[in-house]
Amino acid sequence: MKNRLKEDIVASGRFGREPERRVDAFDILDPENGVTRPTGTEANAKVRAYAMEKMEEAGLDVRMDAVGNIFGRKKGSDPGVGAVMCGSHLDSVVNGGQLDGALGVFSAIEAVRRLNDEGYTNRRPIEVAVFTGEEGSAFGMTLLGSTALVGKMSYEDALARKNPEGRMLKEVLENSGYAGEFVMDLKNVEYFVELHIEQGPVLYNKKMPIGIVENIAGITWVYATIRGEGNHAGTTPMKMRKDALVAAAEIILFVEKRANEMVDKLGSATVGTVGKLTVFPNGTNIVPGRVELGIDIRDVVPAHMESLKGEVSEALKALEEKYGVSVDVSVPPFHSPEPLSPEVVDIIEKSAAQTGVRTMRMNSGAGHDSQNIASRVKTGMIFVPSVGGISHAPMEWTEWEDIETGAKVLTQTLRNLAGS
Amino acid sequence: MKNRLKEDIVASGRFGREPERRVDAFDILDPENGVTRPTGTEANAKVRAYAMEKMEEAGLDVRMDAVGNIFGRKKGSDPGVGAVMCGSHLDSVVNGGQLDGALGVFSAIEAVRRLNDEGYTNRRPIEVAVFTGEEGSAFGMTLLGSTALVGKMSYEDALARKNPEGRMLKEVLENSGYAGEFVMDLKNVEYFVELHIEQGPVLYNKKMPIGIVENIAGITWVYATIRGEGNHAGTTPMKMRKDALVAAAEIILFVEKRANEMVDKLGSATVGTVGKLTVFPNGTNIVPGRVELGIDIRDVVPAHMESLKGEVSEALKALEEKYGVSVDVSVPPFHSPEPLSPEVVDIIEKSAAQTGVRTMRMNSGAGHDSQNIASRVKTGMIFVPSVGGISHAPMEWTEWEDIETGAKVLTQTLRNLAGS
Repeated sequence: MKNRLKEDIVASGRFGREPERRVDAFDILDPENGVTRPTGTEANAKVRAYAMEKMEEAGLDVRMDAVGNIFGRKKGSDPGVGAVMCGSHLDSVVNGGQLDGALGVFSAIEAVRRLNDEGYTNRRPIEVAVFTGEEGSAFGMTLLGSTALVGKMSYEDALARKNPEGRMLKEVLENSGYAGEFVMDLKNVEYFVELHIEQGPVLYNKKMPIGIVENIAGITWVYATIRGEGNHAGTTPMKMRKDALVAAAEIILFVEKRANEMVDKLGSATVGTVGKLTVFPNGTNIVPGRVELGIDIRDVVPAHMESLKGEVSEALKALEEKYGVSVDVSVPPFHSPEPLSPEVVDIIEKSAAQTGVRTMRMNSGAGHDSQNIASRVKTGMIFVPSVGGISHAPMEWTEWEDIETGAKVLTQTLRNLAGS
Repeated sequence: MKNRLKEDIVASGRFGREPERRVDAFDILDPENGVTRPTGTEANAKVRAYAMEKMEEAGLDVRMDAVGNIFGRKKGSDPGVGAVMCGSHLDSVVNGGQLDGALGVFSAIEAVRRLNDEGYTNRRPIEVAVFTGEEGSAFGMTLLGSTALVGKMSYEDALARKNPEGRMLKEVLENSGYAGEFVMDLKNVEYFVELHIEQGPVLYNKKMPIGIVENIAGITWVYATIRGEGNHAGTTPMKMRKDALVAAAEIILFVEKRANEMVDKLGSATVGTVGKLTVFPNGTNIVPGRVELGIDIRDVVPAHMESLKGEVSEALKALEEKYGVSVDVSVPPFHSPEPLSPEVVDIIEKSAAQTGVRTMRMNSGAGHDSQNIASRVKTGMIFVPSVGGISHAPMEWTEWEDIETGAKVLTQTLRNLAGS
């Protein structure tokens, strides 16, 4: 039998990849050659066009809203009930993988095709959704399309955001023909479900085919600049130094130790990472005068996240007295942890059991459009394993067998949610 | 009275500085506007020409050797005794200060002028010396000219070294007319003395006008690459990480702690610095996959330096088991600590006392041509205070009063060394 889902994934995986001549991207995963299709790029327009064509072929009624979110409707038999929405995103990070987002979109289209094939009559309408700008790689914020959709930001503000070339989202969408006029009223949507790669190592390490997400972690970033005194490494005695990197090292170990302690003592899903650190002037023979740090803190329990953020900020300020440095701390706006719908979690679990597939409940450490939709609509997420836990990188990959298992569980979940 | 030394320093401070129109560089120290005259640059050729003119005006017989070291000879009264050499260098780091090196050259010329003025008859010949390429900012190694002079490297190898544009030192010297044929035989040199700015904060903090150097610290660099696993900061649980930056943080604190302990317990002059640290890929939301470190270790006691270098290398390798990372360590060729001549130290101390100037004995944490010359000739160094300990930066500065004190002590030292 023809594997339509595989065909879609292979075909869509060519957009934003150099060289595009590669026919089956899956057979030639290349660590240097990932997928690059931020919102507004030609590659992004091409993958959107491809998906819309497939949606129309599946008999869906395709519309676009003002920020370019795409919706494809399969009518339901009961005009009085809310829809089941299902989908993900098609944009990518720079040099990312081909499954992050795209798998959720094409699995949703494939689920509709399977329901069509079996002559299934859905009571609720099904809306396949493609959200604009999930990755934040072009317009300076993640989850752009879903943020506007749920009303956390106005459509006008979203459209006024600029990419690094200084072009507004509005202009970019109009130029590529992706500025629509449709308005999706979430009051008419009862459920949302998103299939996604895990992007972490848990399912892969446990050899577990399906994860059911109970919570999406909140994210807070803490930026810090530590200023000491840049000096000659040979002529400045140890006792006369204000070494910004020594102070920073203490914070790196503090974040790692405290996050581990919270996991051990509270059984929490806390993660704490100093991912970014830049030293000035960065010469082997110069005592570091300034260090800039970017710290990432996540948890599914708001109090845990707040607590660790507070401790890290205090530890940063305490460096001033201990090392004679000065420390500036800034905390940009952050995402709160978002619990998903227990009802949808149960239905996904039941659907997997009906399909004969093992599952585990888990949390998502990565952000997803689901966390926005969950603020308005009963929402669930299905995870499939990422080989080696790799994501946002060219080697991002999920075994074909696991992709098919995900598609089956998603289809069964749609049957259960949309009613017969 | 006309201040010839001040005139020379102000005039030479214009070469390699933008804009050159500035008349009195000292009155307009500018943090953005330093001196840039690596070997082979037009600015370097200009400052050499200026110094040679002043040497000739002072009656010196000026010659150049194959690598461009300049020597200006004032004949002595006794043809059978070794010379007293005195000087420093005229090249600079990029955007450095105007005193590093230049002060030693122009103070030596001024000392000869003062001896001439008073009709002083020196028994030993005096050789004012300007060494090529001390800073290593053009030809990839420090102390280039003095290394060739003392025979640690052949003149041929020195001349074959290339600058970042791929041009050999030989070509650069020939094009600027600074390739000579004179051969300085160090067997005919009895003493060497170099006046230099301290480049550190010790004299300035202690308000001490003169430092007499007993040892020049050895320098060893340890380069390390720590490879962990670059992963998503949100989706990678704390217990599944191999964070290269956490491992690096432990080394930063180890170097700082052990160097301090050696100072405290051994009273040593040990310094240990992680001056360079680069994180890959360096994104706030990515667990660092790789960190590259540059570590600088210095001491005047060879055993101390070796001991700390060994401990740091072991600590780096121990990260492999503790953090599951891999660590590559490399140690490029290093400079051994060099003791200076106790006889010359005593003579400088006596000379300062005769001049009515307070002094302290100290070590040099920075490298100097003196450490090369000391391997062949009885050598001493005189330090003057660096304001705020600043060097290798545009704000490098020594008060005029301290410069004059240094010149007086140097002149008296030459009287004592060259005999009456």
